Amino acid sequence: MEIKKKNFIKIISNNNIYNIEKKIEKIFKKIKEKGEFQLIKYIKKYDKIFSNFIYKVRKNIFSKLEKKTVKKFINRIYKFHKYQYKKIGIKNWKINNDKFFNIIGQKCSPIKKVLIYVPGGKFSYISSLVMNIIPARIAGVKKIYISTPAKGLKFLKIVSLCKILNIKKIFRIGGAHSIFAFALGTKNVPKVNKIVGPGNLYVSLAKKKVFGIVGIDNIAGPTEILIITDGKCLLKNIVNDVMAQLEHDVNSKAFILSFNYNFLKKIKKKFNKKKTLKKNINIFFLKNLNDCCKLSNKIGPEHLELIINNNKKKILKKLNNYGSLFIGEKTCETLGDYCAGTNHVLPTNSTCKYSSPLGVNDFLKLNNILKIKNNRFKKIGTYSFCIAKIEGLKYHKKSILNRM
Amino acid sequence: MEIKKKNFIKIISNNNIYNIEKKIEKIFKKIKEKGEFQLIKYIKKYDKIFSNFIYKVRKNIFSKLEKKTVKKFINRIYKFHKYQYKKIGIKNWKINNDKFFNIIGQKCSPIKKVLIYVPGGKFSYISSLVMNIIPARIAGVKKIYISTPAKGLKFLKIVSLCKILNIKKIFRIGGAHSIFAFALGTKNVPKVNKIVGPGNLYVSLAKKKVFGIVGIDNIAGPTEILIITDGKCLLKNIVNDVMAQLEHDVNSKAFILSFNYNFLKKIKKKFNKKKTLKKNINIFFLKNLNDCCKLSNKIGPEHLELIINNNKKKILKKLNNYGSLFIGEKTCETLGDYCAGTNHVLPTNSTCKYSSPLGVNDFLKLNNILKIKNNRFKKIGTYSFCIAKIEGLKYHKKSILNRM
Repeated sequence: MEIKKKNFIKIISNNNIYNIEKKIEKIFKKIKEKGEFQLIKYIKKYDKIFSNFIYKVRKNIFSKLEKKTVKKFINRIYKFHKYQYKKIGIKNWKINNDKFFNIIGQKCSPIKKVLIYVPGGKFSYISSLVMNIIPARIAGVKKIYISTPAKGLKFLKIVSLCKILNIKKIFRIGGAHSIFAFALGTKNVPKVNKIVGPGNLYVSLAKKKVFGIVGIDNIAGPTEILIITDGKCLLKNIVNDVMAQLEHDVNSKAFILSFNYNFLKKIKKKFNKKKTLKKNINIFFLKNLNDCCKLSNKIGPEHLELIINNNKKKILKKLNNYGSLFIGEKTCETLGDYCAGTNHVLPTNSTCKYSSPLGVNDFLKLNNILKIKNNRFKKIGTYSFCIAKIEGLKYHKKSILNRM
Repeated sequence: MEIKKKNFIKIISNNNIYNIEKKIEKIFKKIKEKGEFQLIKYIKKYDKIFSNFIYKVRKNIFSKLEKKTVKKFINRIYKFHKYQYKKIGIKNWKINNDKFFNIIGQKCSPIKKVLIYVPGGKFSYISSLVMNIIPARIAGVKKIYISTPAKGLKFLKIVSLCKILNIKKIFRIGGAHSIFAFALGTKNVPKVNKIVGPGNLYVSLAKKKVFGIVGIDNIAGPTEILIITDGKCLLKNIVNDVMAQLEHDVNSKAFILSFNYNFLKKIKKKFNKKKTLKKNINIFFLKNLNDCCKLSNKIGPEHLELIINNNKKKILKKLNNYGSLFIGEKTCETLGDYCAGTNHVLPTNSTCKYSSPLGVNDFLKLNNILKIKNNRFKKIGTYSFCIAKIEGLKYHKKSILNRM
């Protein structure tokens, strides 16, 4: 493990992607051809579900205390997103008194059918389901479907959450074939309009494959944290926050940026003792805070912790690429994972440079509406006719001319 | 050519897609490996540009009248999008007086670098450039690059528009290699954060390929129009509007839906005489207006003209899937292509079921910002700890516990 000075990093890794793409291409074609007959084959093979794959939610294994906490959690997420909708939610709007049009504006409506994919894996990602369903419900999505490959206790926890959220059924399907079934529709799996929720590389590439047939939230990469610190903080907090990120996935990444060399040396020592993948931890010794900001902006991390004691406001302005920013030693990233209120579905893999955390607007869509004032057609028609002429489109011109 | 009654239609066609994907995969790999050296090879081969591929904008071939019209056009688009930004533009926001957090909210900022791709082909798509650049500029995008394969007079028209828009240079690169160069960056081609603008199937699939490395607007399919009419209108208007759509591309589609059989027979006769691809025109005879709406919602057309004389308001409520709706015989689709004000970059291929017309928000992004009140850490920390416990994440728990 080394402390790096060179501020270049290659974040996007391409290992296996090509092979997995080929594999899922096959799965896609087969489901497209043979529908549910083929889907059930995959469910038996990969999900090991031999009975009805649509599970009816009844059980609740949560204790009273767990139930209470989960409800508090849901309420925090609800509160934040309700505010978000109020403040920046897209809505119906029109231009008043346009001189050419009786109506010119946009109509807003919720997406009709959405699949929320809940990953399996090492943990029970109940929080992931909450983060996806709350904004969808605030947007007014009518039909929300849940699909997951989770098994055993992990599955029962998801079932219990569904009970609280008043979700009646769960599709016990995981992996690429789940994504393809919901994108194409089969006998018992409804074709949806949008698919959201994280997953492994198979799921992510399957989502990319069907993008265009359905909408998707993003192509989630492994989770990342970047910490900028002056080193005037508890070593253990930094270590725990890094380890918390790395426990998600073998490809999760952490970056520690500081101008305090002694602190970084201590950090390095701590990690050398830990049983963790050293290659996933990147420690950078930089000249000053300014250089830390520059490198951080270049990386564009999903989570950014800013643990410094001076100049916070000045530094804040310099940071512009991150999914979620956590200011101060107490504001640990794990609060953002759960009960802070903000959404934890965040852009990974530098995608914060062009995309946003999941929110209510991701479940809404706009349509244009136009109705011209008959007596003003001539003027706007003439302008449009001239542009059609410049572009060279014969019938575009005719279409206008015949209405003059 | 037949008048159909069965309301089923397969819109997504997959012809060639697999072969083109394989071809562009090669182009992607080569540009990734060899950068600008390889890019220049492609530019020579496909774009036939043997000198500097970065063209400095100087000339203006527009007449005074053309210049005036183009400026009027730009102003209309500007006005609509300025309104859009005011009404539904995303902005900085926070929750006031949150009991747990000093700061909890989202920061909004423009995407930094954007490529606008302007297609070549049969026509000079100057309107396409306007539709993309105006919302990007209103959002505050700092660096906007233009790339196009247009040649000769068509290119000079784009140059003239760039002069008016105060754009200094144009990259003379078209096709998949253009998209890949801007997604990856080469010596003289800047790596951008988002790529927008329509193109042929190669360009669309190249955009899909790099989605995740950069953001994209959408995967544009061929343009479509759907007309719902009671037949009480000029036959010629319907014919012209259909022909206007079909002159764009050999794969463009038109749908005519009516309950007026005699009218449809006349329409059919008209088209049988025209030199156009009959397979692209779909005529449907349906029982009533309600059935027309149902089929239209199922298809989800890019453009929808509603040419009926009664019950407009009632029908409006029933229509929910379209990119842009044009109400009344005078409100022809071509106005929306040009000077109406609304954006003509619309969801095609049924994608209006989950996505919106291009707008200012497509060039903005949000980041979460959080700072907890130190004295309120315990409560929100405890809730979060409990959820981490349910999920089973050890270091997530530790990260919180160590701060208690």
